[in-house]
This record gives sequence, C-alpha cells and structure tokens, in this order.
Amino acid sequence: MLKIVKIGGNIVDNPEKLDSFLAGFAALEGSKILVHGGGKIATAVSKGLGVEARMIDGRRVTDAETLKVVTMVYAGLVNKTIVAKLQALGCNAFGLCGADGNLIPSVKRNPVPIDFGYVGDPVAGRFGIATARTLIDAGFSPVVAPVTHSGDGTLLNTNADTIAQTVAVGLATHYDVELVYCFEKPGVLADVNDEGSVIPHITPASFVDLRAQGVVSDGMIPKLENAFAAIAGGVRAVVICGSERLLTSGYGGTTCAG
Amino acid sequence: MLKIVKIGGNIVDNPEKLDSFLAGFAALEGSKILVHGGGKIATAVSKGLGVEARMIDGRRVTDAETLKVVTMVYAGLVNKTIVAKLQALGCNAFGLCGADGNLIPSVKRNPVPIDFGYVGDPVAGRFGIATARTLIDAGFSPVVAPVTHSGDGTLLNTNADTIAQTVAVGLATHYDVELVYCFEKPGVLADVNDEGSVIPHITPASFVDLRAQGVVSDGMIPKLENAFAAIAGGVRAVVICGSERLLTSGYGGTTCAG
Repeated sequence: MLKIVKIGGNIVDNPEKLDSFLAGFAALEGSKILVHGGGKIATAVSKGLGVEARMIDGRRVTDAETLKVVTMVYAGLVNKTIVAKLQALGCNAFGLCGADGNLIPSVKRNPVPIDFGYVGDPVAGRFGIATARTLIDAGFSPVVAPVTHSGDGTLLNTNADTIAQTVAVGLATHYDVELVYCFEKPGVLADVNDEGSVIPHITPASFVDLRAQGVVSDGMIPKLENAFAAIAGGVRAVVICGSERLLTSGYGGTTCAG
Repeated sequence: MLKIVKIGGNIVDNPEKLDSFLAGFAALEGSKILVHGGGKIATAVSKGLGVEARMIDGRRVTDAETLKVVTMVYAGLVNKTIVAKLQALGCNAFGLCGADGNLIPSVKRNPVPIDFGYVGDPVAGRFGIATARTLIDAGFSPVVAPVTHSGDGTLLNTNADTIAQTVAVGLATHYDVELVYCFEKPGVLADVNDEGSVIPHITPASFVDLRAQGVVSDGMIPKLENAFAAIAGGVRAVVICGSERLLTSGYGGTTCAG
C-alpha cells in the first residue's frame, strides 16, 4: 500500500504539532508520500519584503513577486526543513516540487473572469508517474511542495489539497493508494461542537444522506466531494483526520470509501 | 561520461547569462549534474527581512535567521527557477539539496576558533552515491543547491565549489567524471589582463611550474588545488572556464588532468 498524507498550514506553522506529526509519519510502515501546504510563513516573508498581499474574493492573488516568495518558502524553507527533520527520524525523505522531474505539469489558470496570477491547476492525465515511481521504488519518501510548473519555464502556485489528489489519482494505477488529509479536527464530525462525534465511515450513499440532513457543514462539503472524486479516480480510501493520531487504526478519523 | 557543471552567483544573479548558460547546459549530451551557488539574491532577501549580515574575516556568518534565508533562496527560489527553465529547454532537471535522499551528509563546522554558525562541510566517504545514481540512471539531470544537513535535523549552508567536488569525487567510482567550474574568466590566464591567454592544459607538474613562476594568481591557486584534489580523488578531468562556451571543445577553458 502507498500512503499519501497531506498536511496544511496549521501544522506547518506550529513547530510542536509539526514535530509530533513527523514522528508519526516517519513511523508509518510501507511506501509513503507527504504533501505539505504553505502556512503563514509566506505572509510574514511577503510583509518583510514589502510584497503586498492582494486578495480577490478572499483569495490571494499570486503576482510575480508573491510567486517568488511562495517558491522560496514552500519549495525551499518548509520543504527542506521537513526533509531534514524526517531524515533525522530515520525516514529517507526526498523533497521536490511539481517542476522537479516534471512531476506535476500544470496550466496557468485562465485570467478570465478573475486573474489570480501565477496559479496553476494540474493537467489531468499528465502526472509524472515514472518520476514518482523512481523515487518510491528506490525507497524514498517524497515530500511534495505545492508549487508546479507549466512547462514553459513558469513556476505556479498550486493548492496543496489538489496536489495530494493529483498524486493519489496519478499513482492509483500502480499502487493500492490511501489518501490521508490531516486537518484541524479529528475527522468529519456528526456534531461540529463535539470532537468525540467523529463519523468513522462515509460511503457515497451515506454522504448523500449526511448532506441532505445538513450534518456535514459547508467547509466539509468540498473536502468530501474531493475525497469521493479521488475514490472515483481509483484511490482505495480517503481519510480525513487530525494530525496527531497517524499511528492509530483508521487514524482516529473518517474513512471515505466506495 | 558524467559531466558535473558548477555555476556561481555571478551567473545566477544575471538573467541573460543564466539563460544563455542553461541553453548550453541543456544541450550537453549524456548524463549531467548542475551545482549552483547562491548569489546576491540572498543578501537582498536578508536585508528585506531585517536579517543583519554578520561577517568575520570577510566571510558571512550563517546564524539561524540567515540559514532560513539561505534555505529559501538557494534550495527554493534559485533551485526551482533553474529546474523550471531547464524543463522548458527539454532537459529533465530534478532539483535537490544535500538533505534530500541524504545526498550530502555534512558536519557543522567547529565553532572554535571562529564560529561561522550553520555552515557545514561534507563528510568524506559518506556521499549518497545510491541517491545520485537513482536520479542519473533514471535519466534525470540533478540540480544541486548548496545546502546540506548534519543528519540530526539541522540544515547547513555549504560552499558550492565544495559541493561540486564532493559530488564529482563521490561519483568517480561509478562514472567517468568530468568536473566543470564556470567562473567569470574564460579559463586560467597566462596574463590576467588578456582573456585570450587561456592556458589550455595544466598537469600537476605544470601547476608546480606555473606557481613557481608566479603565473597563477592568488585567487586561482585554491581553485587549482581543489581541481587536482578532485583528480587525485578519481575525477578524470577538471575544467575551469567561462559559462558561455559549454558547447565548444574543451569549453574554451583550461583542462586540468593527471
């Protein structure tokens, strides 16, 4: 089995949470890939460099200067810090972004109707399977930063959830893939105010019910839609869980499966 | 044959020089590795972030904040910019630093007598041959940033010339290695004021003569000493040349061989 684990900025930004997560990740058995988000470090670096954050509809616009910061922070500082920490934990980590070995060919998002700048979306069916297999089959644990490229020399800022899904679906033809999304909550909750109310399993059918009953909240709906899209793409299971229970059965979270 | 080409900050900092160099590098036949230095971008980023450059004996001290900038700029911005450009030129580049796949285990330099901070020297005999071979044998062109690690989770700033030499000597047991140092001049000059006076070949014996006659200048002596140390370590030839004639025979520079 190949495990693909995604962590977001909330873990990357918190040294204790990150160290505890990485200890769990390093101890996971078998082949594994870590996909990480960026976090607030990029915002702090942008501010320090006088790069103004421009937002449209609450979403950051990646202009040329912001892209430089994103590349520095995500593919440089965050990626290599994680790799060095995993190496110290005995995990043979290998950091890369979507440009390396042409892992994730992307297309710059259409500037119409909204120009988000240097933001890219992976091109379906062009994931670099051979590149990923070279690393995995050699025993490395790839650590993937959310930066891709368009193939004409342009780097692109890319959503880390999308990267994780692209990697998972791309490798599902060659491996039995489990995709694990770590986030702030321990899983999908039946009651948003009760962290003990994790729903252990969701199927496409029960998702329809949960949605109709209004149990799953607004923020969770796109996550679950992505999860079932990954499953439709060949991924065996998608787990939504917290970052601190990687070594618990089912990660103490919600497993989505077909 | 495996070609290992090193470029310094003077090329990295100059977009036209860099593009012209990369076009040459991409067109080189056979297996190849690019090792790059950092350049002044790190200084600019440090300044922007309010990180003060501290120097001892004219050499930069890498404190914790400077190490972050070095990691961001060298292993992030510079490395991924080069990778994306090479990919656009049809070269299957793969960026990494010395922590990735444990390529270059290093040791933090002794703080006595001078504490240069997070600066590392590669440990002799521990170069990650298997990691490098995995990439090379899969047809990738590794692009190596001058950042290494000590294995306990600490990243270290490492001299790019030293990285190039470490990679070359480390791989000389498996490949027929040529090491190419690109710098500001077209080669070792018989007359420092005449760029047409490139000395085409230097042997250990002729190096002794050139040195005795005072032909090679102060700055060139350590470069040539490193070159002959690499040759003593099994590298077939070391070329010292400019960055713009990579496709010329002998690179239009000075070839040092045993």
